[in-house]
Amino acid sequence: MIQTPYLLFLGDAVDPLAAKVAQGIRDWRPEFALGQFRLEGCKADMGLPDMGLQEAYDAGARTLVIGVANRGGYISESWRAVLRAALEVGFDLASGLHNLLRDDPELAQTAGGLGRLLHDVRVPSVAYPIANGVKRSGKRLLAVGTDCSVGKMYTCLAMDAEMRKRGMNCDFRATGQTGILITGGGVPVDAVVADFMAGSIEWLTPDNDEDHWDLIEGQGSLFHVSYSGVTLALIHGGQPDALILCHEPTRTHMRGLPSYDVPTLERLRDVALPLAQVGNPDCKAVGISVNTQHMSDAEAEAYLARVEHQMGLPAVDPFRHGATRLVDALD
Amino acid sequence: MIQTPYLLFLGDAVDPLAAKVAQGIRDWRPEFALGQFRLEGCKADMGLPDMGLQEAYDAGARTLVIGVANRGGYISESWRAVLRAALEVGFDLASGLHNLLRDDPELAQTAGGLGRLLHDVRVPSVAYPIANGVKRSGKRLLAVGTDCSVGKMYTCLAMDAEMRKRGMNCDFRATGQTGILITGGGVPVDAVVADFMAGSIEWLTPDNDEDHWDLIEGQGSLFHVSYSGVTLALIHGGQPDALILCHEPTRTHMRGLPSYDVPTLERLRDVALPLAQVGNPDCKAVGISVNTQHMSDAEAEAYLARVEHQMGLPAVDPFRHGATRLVDALD
Repeated sequence: MIQTPYLLFLGDAVDPLAAKVAQGIRDWRPEFALGQFRLEGCKADMGLPDMGLQEAYDAGARTLVIGVANRGGYISESWRAVLRAALEVGFDLASGLHNLLRDDPELAQTAGGLGRLLHDVRVPSVAYPIANGVKRSGKRLLAVGTDCSVGKMYTCLAMDAEMRKRGMNCDFRATGQTGILITGGGVPVDAVVADFMAGSIEWLTPDNDEDHWDLIEGQGSLFHVSYSGVTLALIHGGQPDALILCHEPTRTHMRGLPSYDVPTLERLRDVALPLAQVGNPDCKAVGISVNTQHMSDAEAEAYLARVEHQMGLPAVDPFRHGATRLVDALD
Repeated sequence: MIQTPYLLFLGDAVDPLAAKVAQGIRDWRPEFALGQFRLEGCKADMGLPDMGLQEAYDAGARTLVIGVANRGGYISESWRAVLRAALEVGFDLASGLHNLLRDDPELAQTAGGLGRLLHDVRVPSVAYPIANGVKRSGKRLLAVGTDCSVGKMYTCLAMDAEMRKRGMNCDFRATGQTGILITGGGVPVDAVVADFMAGSIEWLTPDNDEDHWDLIEGQGSLFHVSYSGVTLALIHGGQPDALILCHEPTRTHMRGLPSYDVPTLERLRDVALPLAQVGNPDCKAVGISVNTQHMSDAEAEAYLARVEHQMGLPAVDPFRHGATRLVDALD
């Protein structure tokens, strides 16, 4: 686990979108976001106090999280100076960048000498077991999508927020680098060796209280030929009791695969549910999450009403309408 | 690729079964199996000439293949002495053992100094791409099973042998260490990082002649929760035109998963075929391969006749009856 709270490093972000990791932390774990650290020319602002390194450390921050994408795929001198200084002040560092902190000789040496941790959340740090398929106590929900990047993480985080508000016993379980940085832990399942994928998800969602829900962030799609194996490992390792079907209705083809059509929600249900029932015969599809960002309010409302009628399940856009009805569907 | 032909190292095999890798090479690529090298007390015999290292090298052998499982998970002193001497004579080494040759400092140093290769076929040696799903020329067949270890590799090797006999244009494509050692190349897909699984299978089965068949060794099963993700990556990366459904009818539960039932062949077809059609809409299930080793001749015959009638597809045990009818089904 990554030590909290965080100081969010926004660097010289070229625009607000470049800082989407920081924004995710700010939105979903505001209690972890003590302050922000910006360089000259930074175009992102989380609305948090701008803090110096020592000031933030004294206020209790323990990890400097790189909340921004880097340009050119390398760590610049101006970034490195801040990161090194943060290690010297007492911070651990956490990053989801492709180029790893541990591969930077200067940072690796400084961290090693001072006993600080470098969390490169894109690569696994655990020797995961092979899945054993044994039924676990507690309940689990998994978001599955007709395609990649349709809002599976957002859906689970929104449900987690709603369930916490109701005082329910739950954990968001991150399976990608953004989710891991937001919540401080998880499994970067894309980077796990094939034999151990399902086992890593069993490890992530162990036996728990009977009333406890794991909200497992989905990855990929059963219909996305590049990543479908990861999705099935999540379905079988996660042993979900409940599936949320996620969809983006304006997409004209599968992400990155111009010759592949996006399946319907009916098809997703009909393929995903029997596969999930291999691991958990009681699994049900309980709700539908639609990303309506490219639709007007009226279009979104009409679309959701139609889907809800066709599928016989609550259909919402959690960004527009919150996750209340999806959580209600868990009863 | 591993240089052929081979000298097969049988070591001090405790019984013939321990040398099943060597037996596979002997059975399926006899032209690669120039001779065998046995230590005192070896209980396996491939019926090949026993050769000294220099003698085998002079006869043309270029790789010493460890064709036997080791005991206790380490490389003994008596093995190491032979392996070192083989490197000095001029051999590369190839191994599918869990403990890697490259991790043995003495062997690594000797090989490095002499410019010999250590092929640890359990780990990938290629930076595989992410799958792009683009339709490839040529034809592909994939074996899928109701469970793990039901005869998928055997089925593809038997079809490959029959197709070669007919002068057809084909390649067996190995996806596990035994198959890789038998044929000298392939992808150890179990050991590939999740994001690259499907891409590794695209890499293994590239564009080819229109009449060429890749016979892709399957792994795992869509119904085996520990490894199903690997199976789906093979289905989507392999883009198969033809599926062979593989089954072992006397199994009482999924291998290693006592509380999981083995699905029927109908269920395998109904789950695997729609998933395969995501990557290749023309994919068909063309035949059934049944491992009848635990049945009498009469039982096997009656079972195969019944399955053939029920499924409307040729059903054979390639070990008992050869793969003629499975190859006929490719027309």
